[in-house]
Amino acid sequence: MDTAIDTGRLSDAADAATNAGIDALLVTPGPDLRYLTGYDAIALERLTCLVVRASGDHVLVAPKLEVPAAEASPLGRLGVPIQGWAETDDPYRLVSSLVPGASGVALSNSMSALAVLKLRDAMPAVRQVLAGDILRELRMIKSAAEIDQLRHAGRAIDRVHEQVPELLRAGRTEREVGEDIAEAILAVGHESVDFVIVASGPNAASPHHDVSDRRLEAGDVVVVDIGGSLPSGYCSDSTRTYAIGHAPHEFLAYYKVLQSAQQLAVDAVRPGVAAEFVDAVARDAISAAGYGEQFIHRTGHGIGLETHEEPYIVQGNAEPLRAGMVFSVEPGIYLAGHHGARIEDIVAVTADGVENLNATTHDLVVVEHSFSA
Amino acid sequence: MDTAIDTGRLSDAADAATNAGIDALLVTPGPDLRYLTGYDAIALERLTCLVVRASGDHVLVAPKLEVPAAEASPLGRLGVPIQGWAETDDPYRLVSSLVPGASGVALSNSMSALAVLKLRDAMPAVRQVLAGDILRELRMIKSAAEIDQLRHAGRAIDRVHEQVPELLRAGRTEREVGEDIAEAILAVGHESVDFVIVASGPNAASPHHDVSDRRLEAGDVVVVDIGGSLPSGYCSDSTRTYAIGHAPHEFLAYYKVLQSAQQLAVDAVRPGVAAEFVDAVARDAISAAGYGEQFIHRTGHGIGLETHEEPYIVQGNAEPLRAGMVFSVEPGIYLAGHHGARIEDIVAVTADGVENLNATTHDLVVVEHSFSA
Repeated sequence: MDTAIDTGRLSDAADAATNAGIDALLVTPGPDLRYLTGYDAIALERLTCLVVRASGDHVLVAPKLEVPAAEASPLGRLGVPIQGWAETDDPYRLVSSLVPGASGVALSNSMSALAVLKLRDAMPAVRQVLAGDILRELRMIKSAAEIDQLRHAGRAIDRVHEQVPELLRAGRTEREVGEDIAEAILAVGHESVDFVIVASGPNAASPHHDVSDRRLEAGDVVVVDIGGSLPSGYCSDSTRTYAIGHAPHEFLAYYKVLQSAQQLAVDAVRPGVAAEFVDAVARDAISAAGYGEQFIHRTGHGIGLETHEEPYIVQGNAEPLRAGMVFSVEPGIYLAGHHGARIEDIVAVTADGVENLNATTHDLVVVEHSFSA
Repeated sequence: MDTAIDTGRLSDAADAATNAGIDALLVTPGPDLRYLTGYDAIALERLTCLVVRASGDHVLVAPKLEVPAAEASPLGRLGVPIQGWAETDDPYRLVSSLVPGASGVALSNSMSALAVLKLRDAMPAVRQVLAGDILRELRMIKSAAEIDQLRHAGRAIDRVHEQVPELLRAGRTEREVGEDIAEAILAVGHESVDFVIVASGPNAASPHHDVSDRRLEAGDVVVVDIGGSLPSGYCSDSTRTYAIGHAPHEFLAYYKVLQSAQQLAVDAVRPGVAAEFVDAVARDAISAAGYGEQFIHRTGHGIGLETHEEPYIVQGNAEPLRAGMVFSVEPGIYLAGHHGARIEDIVAVTADGVENLNATTHDLVVVEHSFSA
C-alpha cells in the first residue's frame, strides 16, 4: 500500500498496550483499524473486531460474510488470522474468550456504544479504557509515507480552491456552488467528499455552517471550507475566504488582521513549541487588534486518517510539538449577523520548522466577474 | 419537514425512559438524534449531546460554534433549549450536571466509545444502558410519513436498477460500473451514496464484496446491491442479479429456486408472524432444493434512518411483525469460487399484509448487448 502498512504497526500497538498495563486493544472498523491493518471495513451492526493482544498474537473477529472482504484487504496480507462468526453466534462472547483472564482492555475511540456495552456485559470484570490514549503516539507522529499522502491531499484540495472563483457568481445558491465543489473534490482524486462549507454573507459568521439555499449577492464575503479523503484514507481540509466584488470596509480591515495572525501562527510552528503556544500566537494577534471576542474557536486540529484527531491546537494543551505532527492552523474572525473570515492551512512539523501543505494564496480572492453582465 | 417531526417524539422518548426506569437518554449525533429532533449533526470529537430527561424537559449540549447550526436545524423549531460550551470547558461534566442524582442513563447506540467512557468517568455511579432498547419501539414502527419516505427511496433506487443493464458491458471493470451507479444514485434524488456492490463472476459469491478492478466477461453473473439516503435521511437498499449473455446452467437452476424462495418469504409477511418465520420460509425453500449450506446470511434487516436497524429477520428473533415495520427480504445463494445470486426488496408490514417498496423485475435480467459488436 501507499502508506506502507506492515506488521510493525501491530507490534508497536502491542508494545504500547503492554506499557499501559492493558491486555488487549479491541479495535472495531474505523481509523484505528485502518491505521493498524489497512482494512477499511464498513462499520455495521454485526461486530468486526481486531483483538490486538499485548502478548503479540492477534485475531480478527468478523461476521462470516465479511471474511472474504477482510482476507482480500491489506489485513489479509499481514497474516492476521480471521475468526468468522455465524449469524446466530454471540460475537461478544467470542471476543471475551480470546482474552481469558484479562484485567483491562482498550477500546477504539470510534467504537459504538452498542459494542462498548455489549463487551462490558460479556466481560463485566474487565476494565475498559480508551485505545486512543494508547495509540495516540503512533497515530499522531506521521511517517514519511503518511506525510506524503497528506501532501497529496493538500495539493488536491488546492486544485479545488483554484476552481472556486469561477463557481462563485451572484445569483447562485450556496447549495449549487457546494454541489459543484463536491464534484471537483472527487474529480481531483479524493475518494470521498467529507464536508463542503459554503458560508456566504451573514452565514460566514457561523464557523460550521454547511450550505443553504441563500443566493450569493454582490458585496458578499464567502468562507469556503472543504475537504475529502484520498483512496488511502488520508484527509484534506482547507479554508479560503472569497469576496464577490467589493467587500465591506470593516471586513477588509479585519481580514488583514486575520491574514497576518494566521501567518504568524504558521511561522511559530516548530519542534519543542507547545501546541497551545501556536493558538496563543494567533489569538494574541487577533486580540491586539480588538477582535479577540470574535475568534470563537481553537486554532486547529490534527489531521490524518481522520479530519479531526490529535494534536489539538488549543489553550490548555501544553504538548510539545514534534516532527511528524500534522495539523490545521485556522484562526477566524466572525461578526455575528454580518460576515466572517477564516484562513486554514494544513502544516507538518519538520525536523527544524514547518512545511505548509497548502499553497493557494492567503490574500482575499476578489471575484469580479459577476459584474461583467 | 417531510417526516413531520414534532415534539411528540421527544415526549414519547421521555415516557419510554420513565417506563424503563432510566433518568435520561443521552443522544449524540446519529440516527437517534435525527429521529427525535430532525437535527442532522456532524459526529465530531467535540461533544454534541441531547439530554432527554424522563421528567420531560430536554436540553441540547453543543459546542458553541455548532449552536447556530443547531438553532437553524429542525431541533431549533422544536423549542429545545441549547447550552453551548466553550473550547476549554468540559462538556461531559456539563452533561453530568444536567442529570443530578441520576441512577441510570441510556446512551444512543451509535455514541462513540470516547463519549461513553468520558461520560462514565464524569458520572461513575450512574448505570449506562443502551438507548436502542428504549427507542426501538419508536423507531421500529414507522409512521405513515416515514413509510412514504421509504416508498420514495424504493422508487428512487428502482430507477437506478432500470439503468443498470446499459452499464453492464463485457470489458468494463466493476469499479467503472460502480462509479456510474453512484452517479445515478445521486441523480435520482438521493443525498448520499451509502454503498455500491458490483460483484461479478466469482465475486458474486461474496455477499459483501464492494467493487474491484475485475473486468466483466461474457457469461458472468453480476450481483448489484445498492443504496443511498434521501435528503430526509431515509435509506434505500435493493439487490438485483444480472447475467451478461448466457449464464452457467447450474446458476440458472438455483436462480429459479432463489426467486421462488424470495417471493414465498415476501408473501409470508403479515402482522403477527414472527420475524424468524420469514427467515425460515426462505431458508426452507432453499434448503429443500439442496442449497441450504449456500445461503450463508440472515434473510433481512430493518431499514429507516439507518440501512440496518431493527427488526432483524433472522433465526432466533421471535418478535411478531407489526404494521409499520419495514425491512429487507434478501435471501441469496452463493457458490464459493463460482458465482452467486441475491434478490432483495424492501417491504412494509401493512394492517393486513405486506407492501413491496421495490417494483423492478425479479427475473434474471440478461444483458445481451455486449454481443452486438
